[in-house]
Amino acid sequence: MVGPEIERLIQLLSRLPGLGPRSARRAALRLVERRESLLIPLAAAMAEAADKVKTCPVCGNFDTVTPCAICADPRRDASLLCVVEDVAALWAMERTGSFKGRYAVLGGLLSALDGVGPEDLGIARLVERARDAAVAEVILATPATVEGQTTAHYIADHLADCAVSVTGLAHGVPVGGELDHLDEGTITAALRARRRF
Amino acid sequence: MVGPEIERLIQLLSRLPGLGPRSARRAALRLVERRESLLIPLAAAMAEAADKVKTCPVCGNFDTVTPCAICADPRRDASLLCVVEDVAALWAMERTGSFKGRYAVLGGLLSALDGVGPEDLGIARLVERARDAAVAEVILATPATVEGQTTAHYIADHLADCAVSVTGLAHGVPVGGELDHLDEGTITAALRARRRF
Repeated sequence: MVGPEIERLIQLLSRLPGLGPRSARRAALRLVERRESLLIPLAAAMAEAADKVKTCPVCGNFDTVTPCAICADPRRDASLLCVVEDVAALWAMERTGSFKGRYAVLGGLLSALDGVGPEDLGIARLVERARDAAVAEVILATPATVEGQTTAHYIADHLADCAVSVTGLAHGVPVGGELDHLDEGTITAALRARRRF
Repeated sequence: MVGPEIERLIQLLSRLPGLGPRSARRAALRLVERRESLLIPLAAAMAEAADKVKTCPVCGNFDTVTPCAICADPRRDASLLCVVEDVAALWAMERTGSFKGRYAVLGGLLSALDGVGPEDLGIARLVERARDAAVAEVILATPATVEGQTTAHYIADHLADCAVSVTGLAHGVPVGGELDHLDEGTITAALRARRRF
């Protein structure tokens, strides 16, 4: 009952995170309803992004300039190298405004199950970057999951003979977090890392 | 920190139903990550929909043919005219597979607050269609909300001197619905419309 063009639009939209088959249908309808103000501009914005946005060959960030604006910014501290799982994590770090170093985007995490090995994540290249005399500290900011921590340990092992200090993000109670809503692992970590008040 | 192209993509995506600012950012990232398999095909599908999908001048449905496939289908019962709020409601009716008549899409509901009057919904044209000798019954399938029922009553009043029977969808317990989860209004309506077992 729906034409093949709309069917295809729904099918592609349903592959976006956060949109299931039902909400993809609603999104497709909204797009067709707002042809001039939404459908045409969004199609153009996507075509432009496909045309212009590239992966930074240095850090793996997405940007329209090569290398990306962060890698090219001389005010960023070249002595700090922050290792993140993906560009979403890089953006999350940037939103804090509290990190002024540079990044290495892995593009995934080590996973025997999914067949992701060190070569898929460019870890040899990362170790090469860490050997640069300018780099003093590598911050392993992979997620606090089993795969995230396995990946962090693997990278730390391979950085052992580099002249850099290797650090990781602190575990603890999230700002604004209530103890009652936290898992035991987080509370245990926060207790172990307790500081003088 | 995000280029203007990605910023614009996020901003447009966040106007889709079901995507807030946070999920629009995730969707934009997914698109850029899957440039070949998702971003380019979706941009093309949107451009094609913008180019080909039209509003049916007879019923208000969206389709690539004019009039739409439903209006043009000689097997559809021309004696039944179902009035729905929007194309989403039309699609919902079609998914049931149990309605074989034709539609009139209002494109909204009467709302003094939002300044939506009868002329915005093409109600005069709907009354004109109902005067066609082929039409025997107009089914008012607007939502069971205050605005939906106000709109239905308004249309029913204006169909009073047409030679058609005017009906509405039944109220009652949804199939699979538990009484404990239903509002009092629905239970009252289901009780009043009770049928011999």
